[in-house]
Amino acid sequence: MSKNVLYAQAGGITAVINASAAAVLETAQSHPEKFGTVYAAINGIVGVLEERLVDMSQLSASQVEQLKTHPGAAFEACRFDLDPLEDNPEQYERVLTVFKHYDIGYFFYNGGNGSMVTAQKVADYCTSQGHPVTCIGVAKTIDNDLDISHCSPGFGSAAKFIASSLLEVNMDLKSMHNTSTKFLAFEAMGRNTGWLTIAGGLIKNAVPDIPLLILPAERAFNKQKFLTRVQQLFDEKGYCLCVVSEGLQDEQGNYVSIANIEHTHLQDYTQLGGVADALSHMVAQETGVKTHSITPDYLQRSASHFVSKTDWQMAYDAGKAAVIAAMNGEHGVLPIIEMTSDSSFTWRFTNVDLMTVADLEKTVPDHFLTPDGMDITQAALDYLTPLIQGEMPFTYTNGLPDIRLFNFSLLPQQLAPYKIVK
Amino acid sequence: MSKNVLYAQAGGITAVINASAAAVLETAQSHPEKFGTVYAAINGIVGVLEERLVDMSQLSASQVEQLKTHPGAAFEACRFDLDPLEDNPEQYERVLTVFKHYDIGYFFYNGGNGSMVTAQKVADYCTSQGHPVTCIGVAKTIDNDLDISHCSPGFGSAAKFIASSLLEVNMDLKSMHNTSTKFLAFEAMGRNTGWLTIAGGLIKNAVPDIPLLILPAERAFNKQKFLTRVQQLFDEKGYCLCVVSEGLQDEQGNYVSIANIEHTHLQDYTQLGGVADALSHMVAQETGVKTHSITPDYLQRSASHFVSKTDWQMAYDAGKAAVIAAMNGEHGVLPIIEMTSDSSFTWRFTNVDLMTVADLEKTVPDHFLTPDGMDITQAALDYLTPLIQGEMPFTYTNGLPDIRLFNFSLLPQQLAPYKIVK
Repeated sequence: MSKNVLYAQAGGITAVINASAAAVLETAQSHPEKFGTVYAAINGIVGVLEERLVDMSQLSASQVEQLKTHPGAAFEACRFDLDPLEDNPEQYERVLTVFKHYDIGYFFYNGGNGSMVTAQKVADYCTSQGHPVTCIGVAKTIDNDLDISHCSPGFGSAAKFIASSLLEVNMDLKSMHNTSTKFLAFEAMGRNTGWLTIAGGLIKNAVPDIPLLILPAERAFNKQKFLTRVQQLFDEKGYCLCVVSEGLQDEQGNYVSIANIEHTHLQDYTQLGGVADALSHMVAQETGVKTHSITPDYLQRSASHFVSKTDWQMAYDAGKAAVIAAMNGEHGVLPIIEMTSDSSFTWRFTNVDLMTVADLEKTVPDHFLTPDGMDITQAALDYLTPLIQGEMPFTYTNGLPDIRLFNFSLLPQQLAPYKIVK
Repeated sequence: MSKNVLYAQAGGITAVINASAAAVLETAQSHPEKFGTVYAAINGIVGVLEERLVDMSQLSASQVEQLKTHPGAAFEACRFDLDPLEDNPEQYERVLTVFKHYDIGYFFYNGGNGSMVTAQKVADYCTSQGHPVTCIGVAKTIDNDLDISHCSPGFGSAAKFIASSLLEVNMDLKSMHNTSTKFLAFEAMGRNTGWLTIAGGLIKNAVPDIPLLILPAERAFNKQKFLTRVQQLFDEKGYCLCVVSEGLQDEQGNYVSIANIEHTHLQDYTQLGGVADALSHMVAQETGVKTHSITPDYLQRSASHFVSKTDWQMAYDAGKAAVIAAMNGEHGVLPIIEMTSDSSFTWRFTNVDLMTVADLEKTVPDHFLTPDGMDITQAALDYLTPLIQGEMPFTYTNGLPDIRLFNFSLLPQQLAPYKIVK
């Protein structure tokens, strides 16, 4: 007997997250003996709590095609974790009520590590209350910090954006440095990990002798060594590009730059940002040259024009693998990417325990970084290069990217109203 | 009898400046009775002084094709003005020496307002010394502040980059604002003019009800009115995007944010930047919501992946018009863009006096801005929309934009060495 499916998106978006959504829908629909209606919650678990649901089965074929390359999170992602069960049992009862009402037997949660914990909590609670729900994660994060997996769907496209942007900006500095800007810092997202920062090193494939410093979050920042390298590159090449993790810390473990402290009802959250600006000022003050900085911020994860086809395929396959895992009777797992060959870039998805992977964070390994911590090795380039290969079709309307908004019809609410407390 | 041609690039780059270079070359080459060898100076007037020259006539057909869509300034632009003649006559004598040695009879200078003054000074001096040089400007600036001209080659592509990026980022905020970032500021270049800022308003063509505030440099910033509008948009739409000029000033005429003060031997130069960050902090502090900011900086002028075909064509035509002006015996002029129809978007180039236009700066007219100074009118949209139409072919190699570096062979130096003092 078939049970209905609930799909939801959580955490920071990626440029390819909606490919996973389409894959969950298409794969589930191709097995009607197992899966009934495919619902999506708007705003992740918040939409479950507040009963804001869409019937994905009602999407037309052309809408599903549009979904596959749509930027942002088509079903709106959330940054919201359930409270601990003992603190807020009503939250869990509400989720169970919604799941029961819509006869949800499968919950596919498309998110990062934190979201996987939420998914598992929900599944455990429902099962303990006699309503078993199969819970499968769908991997996604531009940060690439998902452990065990070869990489994360979403990372390749962000990497492609960063490297492509740097390649273009390099032409700018190369053109102008003789009488203008000689130093430019480019800030990559990444709180604890420097994956997006080292992705900047991909331009070495196009410009092998690029005067580029790479400062990943994994290495403590030493001002003197940094300035020495900058001056060396000025002397050798006339200018210097620098790609830096927003979470760069000094040798005392302090962030080089903090944008803001956000106060929530649960905890204070340190919002990073501004490190490229800080380095740019530092170099201007210490060397007297003209400097600039770029903070692409959310462009890194929303740039649908630089999607990597390889990354897109991985995102699609992640959604598909999740549904197949459910069909195979798996529960509480996350399909992750495993390489199947040393000689060619081929992969498959294998399932790992949700809670295990949720507690891990993959940092850039030592052998990807040069001893001075300011450049990447050939091993890193070999790892990164396949992830940005290929492009997706990209069309324009009236001079702008052809991004049409979805106007999903929310299902009429049938349960008692419920509002989350943020 | 033919004379040789010198072409050079100056000021901040645009994404299409090299189309003008190719047009100067191709147009001059098609009139060998008038134009001899076409030289390019590396680094603008600096390359003239230092005798760093390239023989453009030696470029292969495929190199010329590559040049047409190459980002950056292929011949390296300079930020360097000649000193006043009375302060530094040696500089002018040197230019004359180089011009005489290479039998330069035509000087095409591809730059902004300041560069036009330099070009005119050079031509006046050479003529006064009995070596007449025809001097024609080639229009270029992403800032769109060139007066009299309908628009500036380079602006349309930067406008397309800004609007496209905002459109993608809007999908991010739309997806996430319910539990995450509610305000995002996007910083556009523009010291005194808000042309690139109002270009952000182009997304209204795709998303008419976008919650967007537009803060051009032409309008004084009023914190209270701004915060009131932000809160209104939070209430109505749940989030707010803001595109802001780097040169935004408050009602006392102070810049809202200054990145740095650069000290040169001639004067202090206020480097702007950081206003998006400043607004982002302001909104976070005053409303308590999570905010972000984007500073695309040089991406605006180097993004070859968002080139407007219309803009590209204008840049090509600007180079062509300059050579045709020289053929027609013009001197000391800048070909600018004039609309030839009210009903269709067709243009031609007409010549205006270099020195006249160099002293002017076109700001965003009042009727392009709403009375509160935080939005644009339909008239502005009607002006902007044609400028971003069409795309250029864009190819990839190994997952990155196919940007191959030129390795121009510098001509062997034949004159006494000369180094500029910066």
